Amino acid sequence: MSNTGKTITAAILVIGNEILSGRTQDSNTQYIAEKLNGIGVRVGEVRVVPDIADKIVTALGTLRHNYTYVFTTGGIGPTHDDITTECIARAFGVDCPINAEAQQILEAYYGAAELTDARLRMARIPVGATLIPNPVSAAPGFRIENVHVMAGVPRIMQAMMDSILGQLEHGTPMLSNTIACDLGESMIAAEMGALEAEYAGVEIGSYPHYRVGSLSLSVVLRGTDAVPLVAATRRLAQIIAAKGGTVKLMALQADIA
Amino acid sequence: MSNTGKTITAAILVIGNEILSGRTQDSNTQYIAEKLNGIGVRVGEVRVVPDIADKIVTALGTLRHNYTYVFTTGGIGPTHDDITTECIARAFGVDCPINAEAQQILEAYYGAAELTDARLRMARIPVGATLIPNPVSAAPGFRIENVHVMAGVPRIMQAMMDSILGQLEHGTPMLSNTIACDLGESMIAAEMGALEAEYAGVEIGSYPHYRVGSLSLSVVLRGTDAVPLVAATRRLAQIIAAKGGTVKLMALQADIA
Repeated sequence: MSNTGKTITAAILVIGNEILSGRTQDSNTQYIAEKLNGIGVRVGEVRVVPDIADKIVTALGTLRHNYTYVFTTGGIGPTHDDITTECIARAFGVDCPINAEAQQILEAYYGAAELTDARLRMARIPVGATLIPNPVSAAPGFRIENVHVMAGVPRIMQAMMDSILGQLEHGTPMLSNTIACDLGESMIAAEMGALEAEYAGVEIGSYPHYRVGSLSLSVVLRGTDAVPLVAATRRLAQIIAAKGGTVKLMALQADIA
Repeated sequence: MSNTGKTITAAILVIGNEILSGRTQDSNTQYIAEKLNGIGVRVGEVRVVPDIADKIVTALGTLRHNYTYVFTTGGIGPTHDDITTECIARAFGVDCPINAEAQQILEAYYGAAELTDARLRMARIPVGATLIPNPVSAAPGFRIENVHVMAGVPRIMQAMMDSILGQLEHGTPMLSNTIACDLGESMIAAEMGALEAEYAGVEIGSYPHYRVGSLSLSVVLRGTDAVPLVAATRRLAQIIAAKGGTVKLMALQADIA
């Protein structure tokens, strides 16, 4: 579903005490953001909230109205701290009964005799939602209106995200050119600002990093229109050379040759 | 500054397009969250916003009123896309002139002749703020009221965070006991819920993970009072054994021996 010219936006809502305590490094945000970026959907905001119903409901209420899509991760398992599903139902003002299709999926996976109350909890799905398949451990995610509710375990979340991706509306793809060089960013700060002002629609970000004691700089130029993007990239490479810098690497989605 | 019995909270505001595009994996959140957790400060929320002034100002306006402390990362370098400092000034309704102390620090680092306009931009500090030292690359962060403004480059951010830590009010330390076992979480879901209900102030989270095709489960019990925490941990170990599970690892801050 390509839709060139339209801006499609998304927010990510990460649900889980373990991220906020620092116990767990969130990697789901980057996975989701990369996938969405690849189909031209712009992630405009990420929020991480604890397993507290009011916080989840409030964040969801804001995000689902401000962005085309919302993607949540975490809190849909079988235990007492898995409260995402009921919070989503509450946010949409709908009930959350056992879903027949989800129950069938869980019965097929666990066997009817092993489908305990705890496991059956994972078949509760808000009214009006459609299921998102879970090829890893059966218990499905779901989509309700513009909100996609996924597991927190990265392997499961990734499978869910991959299965959703084809159903999303695509935006205009964002092209990205990166130039890595050996100059400090303050050496070319004024020039980057001037380039961004000159080439409308080209966004320039500069990211210094330290490796084994030496500083290097990645400059990322992004835009939906290849023509000004290529022109700005070419100009930046010339500026770096004129300042005595060496371009160490170019990663180009829009070619400057 | 220990303050047993008081709940001290914090929010983290990550500023940067590179996180939202998926280009960069944020690691600053985990570093800050772990350090704060260690002094009993509870991180209640994380937000990631792009380099867009209105988004930064709005998020900061909400977070600084809802939490004891706010920690921001990113956007305080010398380039055109570094807009955090002016956004903070705007959020507090103060000016943002060249700060004499910051200018001295930059002059000492670069030499007066090399202190270009771009670099001097990093000496602009909101009125009323105090500086946070940067032992890596000189350009300081700052604290204004309850908001701490830090660099985005992890090495610099970590040095800044470490220097701030001693000045923060400490909360009641959160103790954390982890039991790893080979049961699926649905096997002990009801029991974990019952334990949490029985032991007031003990929070129980369960985190399944997949490694080389096999499922394992970490259960994290957290609380500020060691007595119920130890009792709940001991009971959980008994429950796991009674269900035929094997405890593979125990990481205990409050001992159950």
